[in-house]
Amino acid sequence: MSGNDQTQDDFLGGQLVLTQPSKGYRAGVDPVFLASAVQAHAGQSVLELGCGVGAASLCLGRRVPKLSLHAIERQADHAELARKNAEANGILLNVHVGNLARMPEALRAQNFHHVIMNPPYFDRARGSMSPDDAREQAMGEETPLAVWMDQATRRLTPKGTLTMINAVERLPDILSAIDDRLGSLVVQPLAPRRGRAAKLLLLQARKGGRAAFRLAPPIVLHEGAVHTSDREHYTPEIQAILRDGATLRWG
Amino acid sequence: MSGNDQTQDDFLGGQLVLTQPSKGYRAGVDPVFLASAVQAHAGQSVLELGCGVGAASLCLGRRVPKLSLHAIERQADHAELARKNAEANGILLNVHVGNLARMPEALRAQNFHHVIMNPPYFDRARGSMSPDDAREQAMGEETPLAVWMDQATRRLTPKGTLTMINAVERLPDILSAIDDRLGSLVVQPLAPRRGRAAKLLLLQARKGGRAAFRLAPPIVLHEGAVHTSDREHYTPEIQAILRDGATLRWG
Repeated sequence: MSGNDQTQDDFLGGQLVLTQPSKGYRAGVDPVFLASAVQAHAGQSVLELGCGVGAASLCLGRRVPKLSLHAIERQADHAELARKNAEANGILLNVHVGNLARMPEALRAQNFHHVIMNPPYFDRARGSMSPDDAREQAMGEETPLAVWMDQATRRLTPKGTLTMINAVERLPDILSAIDDRLGSLVVQPLAPRRGRAAKLLLLQARKGGRAAFRLAPPIVLHEGAVHTSDREHYTPEIQAILRDGATLRWG
Repeated sequence: MSGNDQTQDDFLGGQLVLTQPSKGYRAGVDPVFLASAVQAHAGQSVLELGCGVGAASLCLGRRVPKLSLHAIERQADHAELARKNAEANGILLNVHVGNLARMPEALRAQNFHHVIMNPPYFDRARGSMSPDDAREQAMGEETPLAVWMDQATRRLTPKGTLTMINAVERLPDILSAIDDRLGSLVVQPLAPRRGRAAKLLLLQARKGGRAAFRLAPPIVLHEGAVHTSDREHYTPEIQAILRDGATLRWG
């Protein structure tokens, strides 16, 4: 991939600089929200499924020192960029190239305190909530959500935590893909503005958790009732997350 | 059931008076919210699954004239009270006694523009989000949620609407019990107070609907940040629903 196919983008107010392809999926605010929502402590281990160029893992590594960070990415060019981005930002990130449906032995041999993931928002494109994996595959989609969920669950330590971000319209698919190895589910909607329906959600689940499902009150992303200018007017809490690398407070 | 085992309770600010048993499940605000959330029009048909003493169907019949109201209830004494309550309030309600898992022929022969239901909140008691129907049955529960959902779906006309109210902690079970005969799902959380997690939800789905899943912004039930007195201080919108029989506006 030559340099002019790529861009260099600031994250966390410039605390992190990521090289990523100009075209295709590009890391935006979603992986930053994902990283901000993980309650990880120094010395813990983290596995990211489908890390792309490493945005979520590297945001987390920037916020929390001394994590053991691991990731798997099926696209070799993205995995290579994730490695380069880790090195360029001085963060240790152990990137494996592979399909999470066939988890590499090196990862299958380990368990992690945290698994994080940001699976493709198929349903955004499809505009449908059908949880039919066969149909998803027939439509040329990649790894079914149930496989992401199963692999995440397998890799967690007992009481380990899965944190994911996804489109709200996938919630039926997501909850249907979770079996009772996971519990203590919390869904945190992210609403564009006060009183507007959430388009994004964070979900957290604990391996072996027994607490009841909880729907947190929405976190509002933008000030005001309407979009008033080209500049994004994020709420102070969201600005602290996106520009200062603050931790997200679950509602 | 003798009179002193029963109470007479006002609903909709006295527009409806219901006789119900003093003990066991008693109709409160939940069936009133359920009825207020159904966008039914004069001349349409409605089936309630598990009508108890008829609170939801009769609230709906009081609000919307000229509905064809039908209901099924497995407990004969509750079904008899539903009939008496309908007659006493001058509303036509066709009550069938039976188990919805073995839908009576008279109902299997019909389809309805609307199906409404308020299944038992098993998980409130269990404090668990496990969607394991086998376990539910083993724990002595009644009709599994999947059967409620399947029977509701079967009884709907094409484009007919299912409306239900339930505990938020059951959302994973509820969404897992819905198959792709239903679509255009909307979940409407009901939060006790602003900024507090919702305990109740309304769910609506359309038979053959194709719109993406939507999570509406929460509707807040009570004024203020805390419970300040013995009297309930409902918001004006909720007061209009509970005391004047107003229609709920989905967020």
